[in-house]
Amino acid sequence: MTDRLPRDRKNDYTQEMASQRREFLSDKTGESLELTGQYSIDPAVLPGNIENFIGIVQMPVGIAGPVQVNGEHANGLFYVPLATTEGTLVASYSRGMRVINECGGVMTTVVEQFMQRAPAFLFENARQARDFGQWVNEHFGEIAEVAQSTSSIAKLQHIEQWSVARSRYLRFNYTTGDAAGQNMVSKATLAASEWIKANSPIPCDYLLSGNMDTDKKHSQLNMIHSRGRRVIAEIVLKKDVVRRMLHTDTRMMAKAAVMSNIGARIAGAAYNGPHSANGIASLFIATGQDEANVVESHAGHMSHELLDNDDLYLSVTLPSLIVATYGGGTGLPTQKECLNLLGCYGKGKANKLAEIVAATVLAGDISLACAVIAGHWVSSHDRLGRNRP
Amino acid sequence: MTDRLPRDRKNDYTQEMASQRREFLSDKTGESLELTGQYSIDPAVLPGNIENFIGIVQMPVGIAGPVQVNGEHANGLFYVPLATTEGTLVASYSRGMRVINECGGVMTTVVEQFMQRAPAFLFENARQARDFGQWVNEHFGEIAEVAQSTSSIAKLQHIEQWSVARSRYLRFNYTTGDAAGQNMVSKATLAASEWIKANSPIPCDYLLSGNMDTDKKHSQLNMIHSRGRRVIAEIVLKKDVVRRMLHTDTRMMAKAAVMSNIGARIAGAAYNGPHSANGIASLFIATGQDEANVVESHAGHMSHELLDNDDLYLSVTLPSLIVATYGGGTGLPTQKECLNLLGCYGKGKANKLAEIVAATVLAGDISLACAVIAGHWVSSHDRLGRNRP
Amino acid sequence: MTDRLPRDRKNDYTQEMASQRREFLSDKTGESLELTGQYSIDPAVLPGNIENFIGIVQMPVGIAGPVQVNGEHANGLFYVPLATTEGTLVASYSRGMRVINECGGVMTTVVEQFMQRAPAFLFENARQARDFGQWVNEHFGEIAEVAQSTSSIAKLQHIEQWSVARSRYLRFNYTTGDAAGQNMVSKATLAASEWIKANSPIPCDYLLSGNMDTDKKHSQLNMIHSRGRRVIAEIVLKKDVVRRMLHTDTRMMAKAAVMSNIGARIAGAAYNGPHSANGIASLFIATGQDEANVVESHAGHMSHELLDNDDLYLSVTLPSLIVATYGGGTGLPTQKECLNLLGCYGKGKANKLAEIVAATVLAGDISLACAVIAGHWVSSHDRLGRNRP
Amino acid sequence: MTDRLPRDRKNDYTQEMASQRREFLSDKTGESLELTGQYSIDPAVLPGNIENFIGIVQMPVGIAGPVQVNGEHANGLFYVPLATTEGTLVASYSRGMRVINECGGVMTTVVEQFMQRAPAFLFENARQARDFGQWVNEHFGEIAEVAQSTSSIAKLQHIEQWSVARSRYLRFNYTTGDAAGQNMVSKATLAASEWIKANSPIPCDYLLSGNMDTDKKHSQLNMIHSRGRRVIAEIVLKKDVVRRMLHTDTRMMAKAAVMSNIGARIAGAAYNGPHSANGIASLFIATGQDEANVVESHAGHMSHELLDNDDLYLSVTLPSLIVATYGGGTGLPTQKECLNLLGCYGKGKANKLAEIVAATVLAGDISLACAVIAGHWVSSHDRLGRNRP
Repeated sequence: MTDRLPRDRKNDYTQEMASQRREFLSDKTGESLELTGQYSIDPAVLPGNIENFIGIVQMPVGIAGPVQVNGEHANGLFYVPLATTEGTLVASYSRGMRVINECGGVMTTVVEQFMQRAPAFLFENARQARDFGQWVNEHFGEIAEVAQSTSSIAKLQHIEQWSVARSRYLRFNYTTGDAAGQNMVSKATLAASEWIKANSPIPCDYLLSGNMDTDKKHSQLNMIHSRGRRVIAEIVLKKDVVRRMLHTDTRMMAKAAVMSNIGARIAGAAYNGPHSANGIASLFIATGQDEANVVESHAGHMSHELLDNDDLYLSVTLPSLIVATYGGGTGLPTQKECLNLLGCYGKGKANKLAEIVAATVLAGDISLACAVIAGHWVSSHDRLGRNRP
Repeated sequence: MTDRLPRDRKNDYTQEMASQRREFLSDKTGESLELTGQYSIDPAVLPGNIENFIGIVQMPVGIAGPVQVNGEHANGLFYVPLATTEGTLVASYSRGMRVINECGGVMTTVVEQFMQRAPAFLFENARQARDFGQWVNEHFGEIAEVAQSTSSIAKLQHIEQWSVARSRYLRFNYTTGDAAGQNMVSKATLAASEWIKANSPIPCDYLLSGNMDTDKKHSQLNMIHSRGRRVIAEIVLKKDVVRRMLHTDTRMMAKAAVMSNIGARIAGAAYNGPHSANGIASLFIATGQDEANVVESHAGHMSHELLDNDDLYLSVTLPSLIVATYGGGTGLPTQKECLNLLGCYGKGKANKLAEIVAATVLAGDISLACAVIAGHWVSSHDRLGRNRP
Repeated sequence: MTDRLPRDRKNDYTQEMASQRREFLSDKTGESLELTGQYSIDPAVLPGNIENFIGIVQMPVGIAGPVQVNGEHANGLFYVPLATTEGTLVASYSRGMRVINECGGVMTTVVEQFMQRAPAFLFENARQARDFGQWVNEHFGEIAEVAQSTSSIAKLQHIEQWSVARSRYLRFNYTTGDAAGQNMVSKATLAASEWIKANSPIPCDYLLSGNMDTDKKHSQLNMIHSRGRRVIAEIVLKKDVVRRMLHTDTRMMAKAAVMSNIGARIAGAAYNGPHSANGIASLFIATGQDEANVVESHAGHMSHELLDNDDLYLSVTLPSLIVATYGGGTGLPTQKECLNLLGCYGKGKANKLAEIVAATVLAGDISLACAVIAGHWVSSHDRLGRNRP
Repeated sequence: MTDRLPRDRKNDYTQEMASQRREFLSDKTGESLELTGQYSIDPAVLPGNIENFIGIVQMPVGIAGPVQVNGEHANGLFYVPLATTEGTLVASYSRGMRVINECGGVMTTVVEQFMQRAPAFLFENARQARDFGQWVNEHFGEIAEVAQSTSSIAKLQHIEQWSVARSRYLRFNYTTGDAAGQNMVSKATLAASEWIKANSPIPCDYLLSGNMDTDKKHSQLNMIHSRGRRVIAEIVLKKDVVRRMLHTDTRMMAKAAVMSNIGARIAGAAYNGPHSANGIASLFIATGQDEANVVESHAGHMSHELLDNDDLYLSVTLPSLIVATYGGGTGLPTQKECLNLLGCYGKGKANKLAEIVAATVLAGDISLACAVIAGHWVSSHDRLGRNRP
């Protein structure tokens, strides 16, 4: 008997084909995949999302919120669907949202949007690579035209360039509307790179990605330059609300934030708050985002400032939040329902979704930060203020 | 009408409670959540995994493989379930696995396992913090005893220490058996910290996490010290197989790897191969892992060496792969089926799962690396060898 | 008796004033500073370079080279003055230079030049900060005019911008001719910032440096964007020369480079070659550079590629090399002599000096890399090629 | 005429040999090196510090201070010699020292000391590398004995280990008394590595440094683990002193520090204060330290906390400060005088010097931070406190 999984010749994603595969796997492994084989969505919707389809993993969804978002795109109360298997996660985000609401809601701002593809062009020596870079700058208009001819959505905004050794790394920055856009920028950049290779006065070879994209991985570059959307969520936590609802106080929160900032900096951490990844991963799965993009999206900076009246300004800056409300997994039936719950399915909605994600991250970090403090931080906080070297 | 989501008073996760919530949300948002409300698993299994449960997101699962793994824990052909909505992902990992099989399989090695919790202890000055650290070292035995009294599984291996300003950051490193272990190390470290606070001759306050864990975020610290499991997958790609199946050659692969390494280093990227995050995220969702841990787990180092016969040694080192085969979401019905498919459910299986994840990452990176080269790298590769400054 | 050091009222840097201070210090500490007080330069040249002058530290200078540089600005054989107290340093750099000469010299390329000052503008919220950034872009011309009015040399090239929390970080990038330029860009950016503050429609406060310059410290940002000059030195090491002069072979060098690259990446190191800092620090001291700039300048990327004929392409990319041939310490008598030795004193010479520094770094790294290999790497290198998992 | 510099056959560092070289260079370049050739130290002291000696660069030295240091090793008022060519540097450090003195002095703490050498051992596969690591642990005693047999000073404290691909990186951590110790740990580790290679049951090759030392380069690893000495300087700045002497206030300083912290984190900077490198470089040159070690030594963390009475706790943690009071350039005549000025020449003095360096860094950062604020920060600071999103 072959080890080869049954393959559908017509790529038709029928129930039968999935069933044949499950039978094959059952023979091979003894696992019948009975529940995995039960699903209510029509597999005919799946081409473009999966291959060798065998069934469905059932990810439980809970609702956090509502949360009051005062954004430019998201405005009002939102019930946030989180798909997770980690207990207390939904409850904790919900707690943070209640605090946010008591403080008047979270202000959200989308700063900018880019999606990148970064080919590396190789030359005989560094001087050629440098001169080539100059030539690219001079021909930006033509390059953009070629790139944009491949898509009705992707717009080439600018090309960053780096010379290292005898390579020239170009990083094409596009806006991609409401799609995450990795595929459309690949296609556009391939066309542009072929045009460049054909027209460059300096002969060159290239690799479509030289890892400066940096696709599907966190990078300091992503902390610096935006990938996906750069979005910021801000709030002023009222002293009284913090005391009443979170059983701690804002001065404590500020002290704890300083210690956490130090830890994050020494560790070289991608995020200095408690747990951006939890909310992002859960919301991504629920809403059909590319789940691997959590690694880029979770990077960020939490910032705090104790105000003169002891209220606490708190914000989360997410420089590389990659969200889509169109394309990819967003159109799958249950994922689409979750997007609809937020009023975020379809074109013109990605900024709104980005704002909701940022608000959610802030909520979760308020809640967890205070849980750590209230549970474990010493009660005698006055003593801390008196500590001196 | 209230904005408050209906809450179950008994935490009983009945169909009815979920239904009430969906009705409430339908009233609020107009989205009926019809398909989300259809599931075949019994919600009674969910307490401990989710709150405010409303239903199920259906994540399609495809099978990559089989892949031949020559590990110490995983040995044989494995059919790898990947839950994703990104088209071509499963196909690409499958392609890499076929190449691996033709080359005799992937060798996998689990190097070590740790899970951390890192409280920060605060003192009046740096000198107290330093002296406290010495005291902690001298009382490791008692501290370990207290920590381990909270769990039958967690074993305290060692405590890393850092002095910064007037804080002393302790990083408790435990083995946690087949659980990911974040919760059990929190509990153990809380007990230990309370004991320390009560017994330290130098008065101190502490924060249970000062962000040097570094929980739910990538960090350079995780690149250096293992979090979860450090696992390595290795292969020697045969020149002929690469040419026949991947339409490129190993010299090209080596050249491309050098360019990608440079890009990753300049960008400060968490991974220098093509896309570890894709395989990890998909396998994590399918098998009930904590999906947010993708951010820590995707970090790593791809290494290559062109051998004298032009075969290519290739390996992936994942220093912070966090997997569980017990606890968390691993026991949910469909997730458990996917673990069973790999023979990885339950105690004594986490090393096996770690090996399979590493093998999967290597497969995906072989495939994507060669796709980039074969599709877009110039055909005239001989020219490159002759390029000189 | 006062603890206060005698201060010159006229800032006249006389021998007498220095002598009075040495006497004061002798009384206080018992150290007469006899040799420190002996110098042949006229202290009258020192105002602008030092305060509370007491004498001279005598740093020994040795000559490395000559080295054949095939640059656009440096062309020919150069005798490189290195001021150091580390034995073997000069000898080792000299050895590398002899190898370079045998291989036809080192090709050097200055890619670009920028010096930065990065004020942080603070707003009431992130939305104001974002909109302010747009306003800055729209008024670049006026801002540049104001900035450039403060200097005949500094030219504002572009302003990078980042939104984090409610701050907008602007990073002014100037060309500064043959001066390092930190002071002139401070002055220019202060003027520009005052103009911005006075004219911005959105009220703002600012801090002249928000640490994104990043002045006098290494940063990943400096790896990405050039600070000072980005300069690249390249060579193809001939297999035979390496064997004859360095007692190793190019395949060994390639293998060792891979291991060193891995180490550097896991450690998160600012440079992946052996020791850029040694040559840079020594050359900086000899030629009157700002010695603290070694921290920015030592960052870089060493790249290698084994060619088909087993010759080895090797290059060093220094993205943040800060050099001056004018201003600062370059005009001090002995430092000026050392610059003259290289034909690098005065205006129009900074690119030349940058090329020589890069060539020197490459020479030192060739030498040390091979010393490590030849002395300590096992002789049976054939075995390595056969190593397989 | 040859291009080869005259070489001394007897390595005797005579005046005559240096003079011959200067004449040679004068012929070659037209630069007579007249002042460089004037020095009062006897070149006979130089062997071990320099090769191809031609003369002396005269680095001007100014005195900052005195500064009140309340350390465990340095206690009292210190006059700090800074060798620099950057105007205002000495004056600025002096200003910070006066502020420190008014606040009662700076408390300094040396936390620990290590010097490293990190060989990389190469195996056939990762599994061998892992098992080898276990063997190393089991034979630590013998390895330490061999290592320590090469030196009367170096003591092997522990060996860190990392598995990446099929290499095992060992990082030998020694205490090295009052020497910086790079050479003695090289010698010790070479002996240990040879013993390991001869005795390991698993055949291995090794490279004496695989770049995880990380010698002569900044690294995140150095931020995490101490290289050289980890030393901390702390002070509580009195509100009134800041206002009177620095023309700003502590609340402003705290606000500015937050903005600078953000900038440093986004940039990925090695230090988050203003300019540790300036003081370290200048003090290093004056006291005969290895000037290239500034790159490792400048890394650090500045930490602040506004106390309840608006005094400001401020500290600098330098995790990788490499200083020596014995060996290297410390015995050169003028350098030795500068060390004597601090009471820091010879054995048993390195901790004292480390404390003085840290105090100096803190002084310089207080001064510059306030200069930036007072000069350029808007006067209407009350407005900032009222800023809200």
